Amino acid sequence: MIYDLVILGGGPGGYRAAELASREGFKTALVEKDRLGGTCLNRGCIPTKSYYSDVVGKLGSLDAMWEKKEKVVDKLRKGVSTLMNRSSVDVIEGEGRITDVSQDVKRLSVTTEKGEVVLESKRLLIAVGAMSRPLSFPGSDLEGIVGGDWAVTDRALWDPSFEDGAESVAVVGAGVIAVELACILKEMGKEVTLLKHSDQILRRSDGEIKKKVNQLVKKRKIPTVDFFRIEKVAREDGRLTVFGEAQGESMEIGCDRLILAASMVPILKGYGLEESGIAFSDKGITVDEFMETSVPGVYAVGDCTGGAMLAHLAEYQALSAVEHMAGREYRINPDAIPSCIFFDPEIASVGLTEEEAMERGLEFVVGRVFFVANGMALAMDRSDGFVKVLADRESGRMLGVHIIGPEAATLISEAALAVDRGLTVKEVAYTVHPHPTLSECFKDALFRILEEI
Amino acid sequence: MIYDLVILGGGPGGYRAAELASREGFKTALVEKDRLGGTCLNRGCIPTKSYYSDVVGKLGSLDAMWEKKEKVVDKLRKGVSTLMNRSSVDVIEGEGRITDVSQDVKRLSVTTEKGEVVLESKRLLIAVGAMSRPLSFPGSDLEGIVGGDWAVTDRALWDPSFEDGAESVAVVGAGVIAVELACILKEMGKEVTLLKHSDQILRRSDGEIKKKVNQLVKKRKIPTVDFFRIEKVAREDGRLTVFGEAQGESMEIGCDRLILAASMVPILKGYGLEESGIAFSDKGITVDEFMETSVPGVYAVGDCTGGAMLAHLAEYQALSAVEHMAGREYRINPDAIPSCIFFDPEIASVGLTEEEAMERGLEFVVGRVFFVANGMALAMDRSDGFVKVLADRESGRMLGVHIIGPEAATLISEAALAVDRGLTVKEVAYTVHPHPTLSECFKDALFRILEEI
Repeated sequence: MIYDLVILGGGPGGYRAAELASREGFKTALVEKDRLGGTCLNRGCIPTKSYYSDVVGKLGSLDAMWEKKEKVVDKLRKGVSTLMNRSSVDVIEGEGRITDVSQDVKRLSVTTEKGEVVLESKRLLIAVGAMSRPLSFPGSDLEGIVGGDWAVTDRALWDPSFEDGAESVAVVGAGVIAVELACILKEMGKEVTLLKHSDQILRRSDGEIKKKVNQLVKKRKIPTVDFFRIEKVAREDGRLTVFGEAQGESMEIGCDRLILAASMVPILKGYGLEESGIAFSDKGITVDEFMETSVPGVYAVGDCTGGAMLAHLAEYQALSAVEHMAGREYRINPDAIPSCIFFDPEIASVGLTEEEAMERGLEFVVGRVFFVANGMALAMDRSDGFVKVLADRESGRMLGVHIIGPEAATLISEAALAVDRGLTVKEVAYTVHPHPTLSECFKDALFRILEEI
Repeated sequence: MIYDLVILGGGPGGYRAAELASREGFKTALVEKDRLGGTCLNRGCIPTKSYYSDVVGKLGSLDAMWEKKEKVVDKLRKGVSTLMNRSSVDVIEGEGRITDVSQDVKRLSVTTEKGEVVLESKRLLIAVGAMSRPLSFPGSDLEGIVGGDWAVTDRALWDPSFEDGAESVAVVGAGVIAVELACILKEMGKEVTLLKHSDQILRRSDGEIKKKVNQLVKKRKIPTVDFFRIEKVAREDGRLTVFGEAQGESMEIGCDRLILAASMVPILKGYGLEESGIAFSDKGITVDEFMETSVPGVYAVGDCTGGAMLAHLAEYQALSAVEHMAGREYRINPDAIPSCIFFDPEIASVGLTEEEAMERGLEFVVGRVFFVANGMALAMDRSDGFVKVLADRESGRMLGVHIIGPEAATLISEAALAVDRGLTVKEVAYTVHPHPTLSECFKDALFRILEEI
């Protein structure tokens, strides 16, 4: 049998592509070597948000947080499995390897428990994801050192009743993963140190968000070391000592766990990519705007293509790819991709930062309203933070929205819709927003802009 | 001096109009006999949401909920006061009375502490609000009986440490106010009975929402009496006995408090409306689409004009009125007015219900997704509820969105924008929604519709 589509990787990009392809009537197979759901569901977004809700949101008890996380992940994984069944997708457990994509019929071999299986397909979609950048230093393979992409599975960190509790944690990194993990672990009462490669935090965020996060990190008493370089790590009596250097000074940091969450890199090895003729660089597999690679009929989506590495981006890239396979065109608007950071309070953004707008030489207006002026935020006693909107001075179109505050991750969707659809500040401000809600803070920021343009 | 605009009433409609008018350069006065902020801020939306956040949202302690509410209301009222100052609006404390609107210059007299003041203005805006419909039965003026519009100020109900605690409460009504109060009081551990005029609950809501709320009321063990008519109330030893009849059966209900929250009626008396020549009915002051009354230059907004009686509607009506005064036109889309009900879980809606769409004879498709399939809701352990979307089968435009579930009040804004702007299901579904968020439940409901149209 020749499939219409074979997908390598069962994360959000892969399983979403499978679902959409099956709706197009494509006979589809999905190859996954580990667990359906990928990094996001098993070791990323979902487990951290389960912890986050219990610890930061105080929606659950700390004693039950590990079991709850297991249950949530399990339920969602079963959901993906059911979805694949319902979509009549053949899920093949095993390690896939691209063997030949030079012909119209692409070939993959899969090493399964029952032996080698060869798959033939008219199209191939690669969605193998990313992993924490491996750091190499003396002691890097010691027990107690864990990558940012696996840290949530380390029970000693997340189960307060676990006997071998890890009470002090050093986190290398200053990106989303590092900041989210540090925030939750600190709130759990652990001793957390943030070891940063530079003096930046959340590098891609708007400057005012960064400033606010820096203040909050200080306020939460999370010690931070800037420009840190690991030299080596030693382990004694179950504890680690991280030896390093920061701005010319030698440092020693003791901890129970060292989390390496500096950055994620696309997975490019181990599945025949290098010999396939498909173009790639160390930034990821090269794709066009419809996610097609240099080889016609071979697509790639998600983290393995580099870029922002967001689960939802992978899903929409899957949509773009399947639309293209079906002879239609769907382009993702690169300036309207929202992202959320589950800090305390939440952070969410869409579109251009002020810095990016300046770089592009745009004439823009800023509207900024603090949640302390929002009735609902006061009623919730969660009034720290603000909404910042950038709009093009001439057209009045929204360029970017940056929120730090209560329910920011939910609030950003309206802004994302406005930015993506090219709506003007006036169009959105003049749309009735309900009272009393947190959305009024966004609406009020829009009215601020209307006073100026 | 002749004002450009005099506003009667300092609630959301009134103070918002004052703010907007001042931006137009109008010399503006605002007359308020009680407290700035109106029912909404002082005795409605804001205090209930403060209680709701503490009790249902578990964001604060019950022992402190009364003081917190006082603080929140106080802060917001000061905010309105500051806003009026900054806008150079003359705030006049006193009881206003329309004396002559037949000429180009309208006249009001205001009874202030310092005596009678006469105001002259080119325009008048009436925003005097609404009140609980007074019910008349033997014993209706007894201590312990309180209107739905004042119930939040009854400390014995809301302060668990208050000596004269009211532990059992009967609530007359089945609308938003009755349901919200019953939900919070029950969650506080009180004995709550809901006395309904019919067998309906939340009459204006979509049928599936009503069904779900009925299930939840039952699950929460809130006894409900349908078709209840009060006959009389007696008071003995500090407790009330409500005598009534339901479907032919006599009933006696004992309680510490009886809250009359059956419905709100526009305030039409006590400020010279009846003698003014301005047209009105018992449903409210008659206005056109720009909120102008039958008398040119006299506008009315908010609850005193009847209709949905929502604070945010009053605000946008104020916008419509002031735009018209300034020679511009802004029409509120009557099919895109969102509303929120702070039940557990939250409820929010915008646009047509399924029943309304059927009445209009529309051909529509329904997309429905339950939060139990949403990763974020599971991670939060708040997965009860659903998102229901109605879309026009031919155009694909969204007709209505009905949400019951976590953060519904925040989620509805994106839907409201989509409905108001006439966006299609595909346009919104194909806009990138972030993961993991509750908004994905809305997005997923849209994709369900796309499978059908």
